[in-house]
Amino acid sequence: MRLPAPNYHPPFNITRASHAVWSVRDLDASEAFYTQVLGLVVTARENGRLYLRGLEEVCHHSMVLTRRGGAASCDRIGLRVFSEDDLDKAHSFFTGRGLPCAFAEIPHQGRTLHVSDPLGTAMELCAAMPLAERKLTRFHEHLGGCAQRFDHYQLLLPDLETAGEFYTAIGFRLSEYMVDASERLMALFVQRKGNPHDIAMMLGPGPRIHHAAYTTVDVHTLIRACDVAGSLGYGRSVERGPQRHGPGHALFVYFRDPDGHRVELFNTHYLTLDIEHQPARWDPSNMDRNLPWGLPAQRSWYEEATVFAGVAVREPAFKPNPVTLERYLAERS
Amino acid sequence: MRLPAPNYHPPFNITRASHAVWSVRDLDASEAFYTQVLGLVVTARENGRLYLRGLEEVCHHSMVLTRRGGAASCDRIGLRVFSEDDLDKAHSFFTGRGLPCAFAEIPHQGRTLHVSDPLGTAMELCAAMPLAERKLTRFHEHLGGCAQRFDHYQLLLPDLETAGEFYTAIGFRLSEYMVDASERLMALFVQRKGNPHDIAMMLGPGPRIHHAAYTTVDVHTLIRACDVAGSLGYGRSVERGPQRHGPGHALFVYFRDPDGHRVELFNTHYLTLDIEHQPARWDPSNMDRNLPWGLPAQRSWYEEATVFAGVAVREPAFKPNPVTLERYLAERS
Amino acid sequence: MRLPAPNYHPPFNITRASHAVWSVRDLDASEAFYTQVLGLVVTARENGRLYLRGLEEVCHHSMVLTRRGGAASCDRIGLRVFSEDDLDKAHSFFTGRGLPCAFAEIPHQGRTLHVSDPLGTAMELCAAMPLAERKLTRFHEHLGGCAQRFDHYQLLLPDLETAGEFYTAIGFRLSEYMVDASERLMALFVQRKGNPHDIAMMLGPGPRIHHAAYTTVDVHTLIRACDVAGSLGYGRSVERGPQRHGPGHALFVYFRDPDGHRVELFNTHYLTLDIEHQPARWDPSNMDRNLPWGLPAQRSWYEEATVFAGVAVREPAFKPNPVTLERYLAERS
Amino acid sequence: MRLPAPNYHPPFNITRASHAVWSVRDLDASEAFYTQVLGLVVTARENGRLYLRGLEEVCHHSMVLTRRGGAASCDRIGLRVFSEDDLDKAHSFFTGRGLPCAFAEIPHQGRTLHVSDPLGTAMELCAAMPLAERKLTRFHEHLGGCAQRFDHYQLLLPDLETAGEFYTAIGFRLSEYMVDASERLMALFVQRKGNPHDIAMMLGPGPRIHHAAYTTVDVHTLIRACDVAGSLGYGRSVERGPQRHGPGHALFVYFRDPDGHRVELFNTHYLTLDIEHQPARWDPSNMDRNLPWGLPAQRSWYEEATVFAGVAVREPAFKPNPVTLERYLAERS
Repeated sequence: MRLPAPNYHPPFNITRASHAVWSVRDLDASEAFYTQVLGLVVTARENGRLYLRGLEEVCHHSMVLTRRGGAASCDRIGLRVFSEDDLDKAHSFFTGRGLPCAFAEIPHQGRTLHVSDPLGTAMELCAAMPLAERKLTRFHEHLGGCAQRFDHYQLLLPDLETAGEFYTAIGFRLSEYMVDASERLMALFVQRKGNPHDIAMMLGPGPRIHHAAYTTVDVHTLIRACDVAGSLGYGRSVERGPQRHGPGHALFVYFRDPDGHRVELFNTHYLTLDIEHQPARWDPSNMDRNLPWGLPAQRSWYEEATVFAGVAVREPAFKPNPVTLERYLAERS
Repeated sequence: MRLPAPNYHPPFNITRASHAVWSVRDLDASEAFYTQVLGLVVTARENGRLYLRGLEEVCHHSMVLTRRGGAASCDRIGLRVFSEDDLDKAHSFFTGRGLPCAFAEIPHQGRTLHVSDPLGTAMELCAAMPLAERKLTRFHEHLGGCAQRFDHYQLLLPDLETAGEFYTAIGFRLSEYMVDASERLMALFVQRKGNPHDIAMMLGPGPRIHHAAYTTVDVHTLIRACDVAGSLGYGRSVERGPQRHGPGHALFVYFRDPDGHRVELFNTHYLTLDIEHQPARWDPSNMDRNLPWGLPAQRSWYEEATVFAGVAVREPAFKPNPVTLERYLAERS
Repeated sequence: MRLPAPNYHPPFNITRASHAVWSVRDLDASEAFYTQVLGLVVTARENGRLYLRGLEEVCHHSMVLTRRGGAASCDRIGLRVFSEDDLDKAHSFFTGRGLPCAFAEIPHQGRTLHVSDPLGTAMELCAAMPLAERKLTRFHEHLGGCAQRFDHYQLLLPDLETAGEFYTAIGFRLSEYMVDASERLMALFVQRKGNPHDIAMMLGPGPRIHHAAYTTVDVHTLIRACDVAGSLGYGRSVERGPQRHGPGHALFVYFRDPDGHRVELFNTHYLTLDIEHQPARWDPSNMDRNLPWGLPAQRSWYEEATVFAGVAVREPAFKPNPVTLERYLAERS
Repeated sequence: MRLPAPNYHPPFNITRASHAVWSVRDLDASEAFYTQVLGLVVTARENGRLYLRGLEEVCHHSMVLTRRGGAASCDRIGLRVFSEDDLDKAHSFFTGRGLPCAFAEIPHQGRTLHVSDPLGTAMELCAAMPLAERKLTRFHEHLGGCAQRFDHYQLLLPDLETAGEFYTAIGFRLSEYMVDASERLMALFVQRKGNPHDIAMMLGPGPRIHHAAYTTVDVHTLIRACDVAGSLGYGRSVERGPQRHGPGHALFVYFRDPDGHRVELFNTHYLTLDIEHQPARWDPSNMDRNLPWGLPAQRSWYEEATVFAGVAVREPAFKPNPVTLERYLAERS
C-alpha cells in the first residue's frame, strides 16, 4: 500500500465540508427531530424544503431536507470553496478529468457547481451563502444537543485507492487511515480546514453517505442530546454511543433521524495544520486501540447508509468484515 | 401484589449502605484498577487486605479487598447503624427472628455485628470506623473516575416478597419497584439515607451481589473513568454505559474489576425524605421508559454476579427473562 | 468558645430545609427570572402568589413569591418535619421554651406551625404538601440553571452562641463552623438531612435571610445559568461566582432576583451521616483556604440580605469585618 | 474609522500562532505551575530552557521558558508558516518594508526567521519543529487544566491603525473589533487558522504581550484548573474568571504564572473560514454585551503585561479608560 502523496498546490481552494441535502418523507417530523434533539436552528422552510443550520453558523444552511416520497436518499453533499474564482478553476479541473460538472441555480446559495467524484459521489461546491444570525450566545434558545456546526461527513466507497488519489489531487490532506494486515486501505480521513476531518471514507458498498457530523459544545450537551431524545420518545434513535472513537479521538453519539439518515454529534478534535504532521495509522484488528471503551457498534452502523439519489451502488473488490456488536457478543458467550 | 408497608419506627437505626468486603486474587492488580480507573484512595494495605475509600469519605474504608485464591466471592456487605445502642437493638432483633447474628472483631471498624437476611445475604453492621482524611478538595490527587462515596449495592435475590417484608421491617423505605404484568415483583429499591438507593434488589438466582455503586462528581468524571480505563488497557472492563437508567434516573457506567466484581459509577439522584413520596412503579416490558437511550445491557450484566462466600445460591420460583442486548439485536435483525 | 453538643434525641424530627416565602413587587418579572434563569417550575399561580419547585421536587412548592409593595422581605422560611406527630411535639417544645408558636392554615401545605427561633427568625414547619410531577427526566423542558431542589438557606444572625444552642437542641448537627482568633463564632453550618447544609448561619445584623440555595446537576448547568442570565439581560444579577467555596466545598453562583433576594445555585456536597464525623473548623483570616480561587465577594454579598417582614434587626455584639472584594483590591494596589 | 481591507493573496502563508518564549527566574517553580495547574507536558529541559507543549500538540514546543534574572520579559512570540518557501518570501517581505528581519539558529525548530512588526513586537517564524508524541488520549497522564494547544496571543499595542494595516497585509483576517464612540479602534482580533483568534490586539502602552492562550477540553477542565490551583496553593494566580467573554464568546480563566506572565485557558470558539463572514463590531461602553456575566476584570488585567526584552514601550496617542472592577465597584457603592 502506498499512501497518496499530499498536494500542497491544489487546482482550486476547498475550505471545508459544508452541507448535506437529504430527502425526507415528513418535514414536520424531521423539523421536530433536528431542532429538539440535535438543536439545529431553522433558517427557512419553503417549497417543500427545510433549511437548517448549527448554533454558530452564519451561513444560511448546513442541512437541507427535501420532502420526497420513496426511500430516503441524499441529493448532494456540499463543500465550500473560498472564492468565486475557485468555482471556475474547479470547473476546469472536473472538465479536464472528464468528471460530471455543471453549474446549477440553487436557492440560498451563491453560484453552485454540481460535480461527482470518480466513484459517483454527488457533490456541490459553492463559495458563499446568504448570512444568517449567529445563535451562539442566544443561550436561552439552545435546545437538545446544541449542534454547533457541520464539521464533516463520512462516505462508504468501494475503492479507497481511487478515492485517495482523487481527494489528495484536489488538496485534501490525509490525517488518519486504516489498513489491514494485507495492506489494503480500509479507511481514509482527509481534511482541508485543519482538524482531523472534512471527509471520512470507509471501504464498503457505495458511494453512500454514512453520516453527517456536527460538533457540539461539551460532554454535557452530548448527554443532553441523548436525554432529550429519551424524554421525547426518540430513545431508539440513539444508534451508538456515547463513546470515544479510536481514530480521530472524538467523543461521539450517532443518531438515526426519522428517515434513517445518520447524524453524529461529537466533541473534541485536534489541530492538524503543520506540514510535519504524519498521518496516524490504524489497524482494523486492534480492537483495544480502535474501541477504547470496549464495545463495537451494532451491525446497522457498519452496514446501513444513505444512497445518493440515482447513483448506483457498487461493491468493493474486497469485502470488509468488521467485528460488529452482534459478532462480538456471540464470540464472547 | 401488595407492596410492603413502610415501618417508620424501626427496631434499630440503619443510616446507610456503607461498604463491601470482596475477595481478589491479586492485590496489586486490584489496587491499580480501583485507584487509577475508579479513583478510590488507599487507606491501608496490610495482612493481605487492601482498604479503600472514596474521595469524600472520612470513614476508614468503604471497600475491603481480601487476597484469596479460587473463585471471586463477597465476604460481607456492610451497613452503618447510627450508634452503639443500635447494634444491641439489632442483635435483639435478629436473635428474635432466628436469623444468624454474632458480634465479630473486625480491624478498623467499631464493634461489628455479623448478620444474614432471610435469604442468606451476609451482612455486617457497625456504628463507627476510624477517621481518615477527606480528600474531596485535594483536587491535584484526584484520579480517573473520582469516585466520591459508596452509595448503594444491588443484590440478586430469589424471593423479593420475603426481601421486601424484611427490609421494610428494619426501616428501609421503598423508593421504586418493578412488577410484571402478572403483578410479580421484579425489582425493589429501598433506602435509609434519603436518596433513591441504599439497596437495589432484582429477582434472580441468589443471594448474590450484582454491584457496589459509588457516586461521582459529574458527567465529566464518568467519561474520564472510561477514558482512563481505555488508555490504561482496561477498555474491556467497561461493561455497560455511559447511559441513563430509567429507574432511579442515574447516569451510569458499569465496570468489571480484574476479578469480575462489578462496580457502578453514577451521578445524579433525587431526594426522597418526605413522607408523602410514593414509590415509583416500573413495568419491565416498557423498554422505552426503562431504557431511555435505547439499548439494553449485554447478557453478562443480567446474569453474572458475585456469590457470597459459603452461601448457597437458590433459583427464584419465577425466572425473569430480560431483553438482553443479544436478544434485542437478534430480534431486530 | 465551646461548640454546642450534639443532641441525638431531639424533641421532634425535622427532616430538612424546605421552602422560602418571599415578597416581590412584580410576579411576572419574578416568574421570568426564576423559570428561565434558575430553571424552577411553576406549580401554581393564584391569589397574588407564585408557587415554584425544583426539577426533582414532588412537593407542591419550595419557593412562594407573594406580590406585595414596599421593600422586599421574607415572610417565613420553611422546614419539613417527618410526620404530623412531630408538629404536635414541636408545638410543645416551642411553647415550653416560651417561643412564638401557632398553627396556621396555609394553602397547598399540610397542617402548618408558625414558630420563631430565639433570635426572631420567622419559620414554619409542616409535614406534607400536595404532590406534583417530578420533572427530573422531562429533559426537553429543563431551562437555564436546571435548579433541582431546595437544599439549604443562610441566615445572618446577631448571636451565634444562642443560635447554636437552639438549633442543636432541636436536633441539628454541626458540620462546619468558623471561629476567629478570639474564639468568637463567626459561622455555623448545621444539618438534618445528612449533607453539610440545611441552615448556614453567619454573624451579622439580623435575623435576616442571606440566601436560599438550590442544587443543580453539574458544572455545566451552573455555567448555563450564567449564560442564560447574560443572554436574557440578567447579567448583572450574577453577584458572585462561579467559584468554589472553602467551607462546604460547593461550586457555586449567587444571583440576585429582580427584588434583590439572593439565590445560590450550587453543585457537589459530601455526606455527613456518621456519628464519628467531626465538624470542620475554619479560620476567617485564612483567605487562601476559605477562598481557594482567590477573590472574595463584593461588599453587597457580605452586607445585603432580606429582612423578615415585621421582625426587627439587631446588631451583633461584635461586628465582623470581612475582607470584601473592594477591600482586597484596595489593599493590593 | 476604516477597517483594514482583507488581503486574500498574502505575500507568504502564515498558518497559525504557535509559541511563546518567556523568561522566568526559577525553572522548577515554572515547571510545577505549568505542568500541574495548566496541564502542559514537558518535551525537554536543557541549557536553562524548559520546552512545553499542550496535550494534543505534536510539535516540539509551544512554550519556551528561559531562566534569566531581572524583570520577566518575552523574548519572542512565534508564528508558523506553512513551508520553507514561505520563510524566504517572508524574508523578502520584511526586507522590502524595512522591518527587522534575520535568520537565526534556534534549537528544536526548523529554519527560523526573526522579525518585528512596525510597532516593535518581536516575533519569530518557522515552518517546522521536531515531532513529539500526541498525548491527547493518554488520559491517565492528564493533569490540572488539560491545556490542549496554543491557540492565540494578545498584544497591547500603542497604535491599532498601523497594526491593522500590517497584519492584514500579511494575510490575517479580521474577525472582531472594538471601536469607541469617536470611532477610534480599541481592539482588533485577527486570525489565520479559521477560528476567531490568532492574535488579539488591544490599544495600550506597548508593544507588550498581555497573554498566551491555550484551549482546554471542556468547562470541567477549566474548573479543574482552578481547583487544582487552589489545592496546590496557587489560588491567587487565578486573576480572572471563570467567566464568559463578550468578544469571541469564549469561556475563560486567566492565570498569572509565578513570574507574572498571564496565560488564558479557554473553551469554545466558532469557525470563521467563509468569505462572506463579516467582522463583529463591539462597543467598549456596552458593558452588558461585553461582559455578559456582569463583572469586569480587576485593574491588573487591564494594565499589566509582559514587555518584550529590549523593546521600548510607547504610549498610545489616546489612553483607553476601561471600567475596571475597582471602578465598577466604587461607582456602584
